[in-house]
Amino acid sequence: MKTPEIITKAELLKHWQGHRSLTRRVIEAFPEQDLFEFSIGGMRSFAHLAQELISIAGPGLQGIVNRVEEPYEEKIDLRTKKEILEQWDKTTDAVDVYFNKIKEEDFHDSFNLFGQYNSPVYDNILYFIDNEIHHRGQGYVYLRALNIEPPYFWER
Amino acid sequence: MKTPEIITKAELLKHWQGHRSLTRRVIEAFPEQDLFEFSIGGMRSFAHLAQELISIAGPGLQGIVNRVEEPYEEKIDLRTKKEILEQWDKTTDAVDVYFNKIKEEDFHDSFNLFGQYNSPVYDNILYFIDNEIHHRGQGYVYLRALNIEPPYFWER
Repeated sequence: MKTPEIITKAELLKHWQGHRSLTRRVIEAFPEQDLFEFSIGGMRSFAHLAQELISIAGPGLQGIVNRVEEPYEEKIDLRTKKEILEQWDKTTDAVDVYFNKIKEEDFHDSFNLFGQYNSPVYDNILYFIDNEIHHRGQGYVYLRALNIEPPYFWER
Repeated sequence: MKTPEIITKAELLKHWQGHRSLTRRVIEAFPEQDLFEFSIGGMRSFAHLAQELISIAGPGLQGIVNRVEEPYEEKIDLRTKKEILEQWDKTTDAVDVYFNKIKEEDFHDSFNLFGQYNSPVYDNILYFIDNEIHHRGQGYVYLRALNIEPPYFWER
């Protein structure tokens, strides 16, 4: 008998999209100017961090699906919260499309993400999610420092 | 033919323990006094956050294994970095022991974590990991604000 799956592909996608929904609300919670200008300790603005996440998620998944190991290219050319949210939503759609193209049997293939991070596909995808949680947690501190109540972490 | 697993139980444990190793290094990176006293925007100190993580991981997993839905009880009685690191390491051992007691076929059972959060076991465990990444990301901002270089996020 085969070992039962501890988490299915559909569950992992739902989990990730739940996180993406929360991150979207964190972007929304920032006042326009603070989104682009506020930072602590010399760190990047949350607008910059959000664009890092956008530059990773869509292109990273497409790279996995198409087996194209192109270098990471960070696009930080968005200038308004509205533009960032629009790009966020496009990426959310792309995540659905490309994630679903990865077959279950491919999650243990090695893939050299962005021509640089060689690990199994499942590990690349966990990295996308973890990196989003990591930077979003930083956004929570920015919001608190701005005296703005962030959305509840457990609401997805 | 059964669908191949996208991530195995052993891989998820290794992934979590990699995160725990990084969080340990973040605790270590704080100067003793700042660990307990520094905060931004009225948030909790990193010592407090670390003790939240300790109060969740070990007891949460034990609850899942023993099917005991006891209320969450936060213990924040540790007073030195050394004590926190010792308790962290004990919890790391406990995570190995209890995680391995959960059978693959039980990851989709519903469990009412701390008598309060009813979801599948796999989802409870992802929550433990995500919550750790979230708070650790906040610790990174504290360290940056203290002009201390945090460990690399991708080193586990």
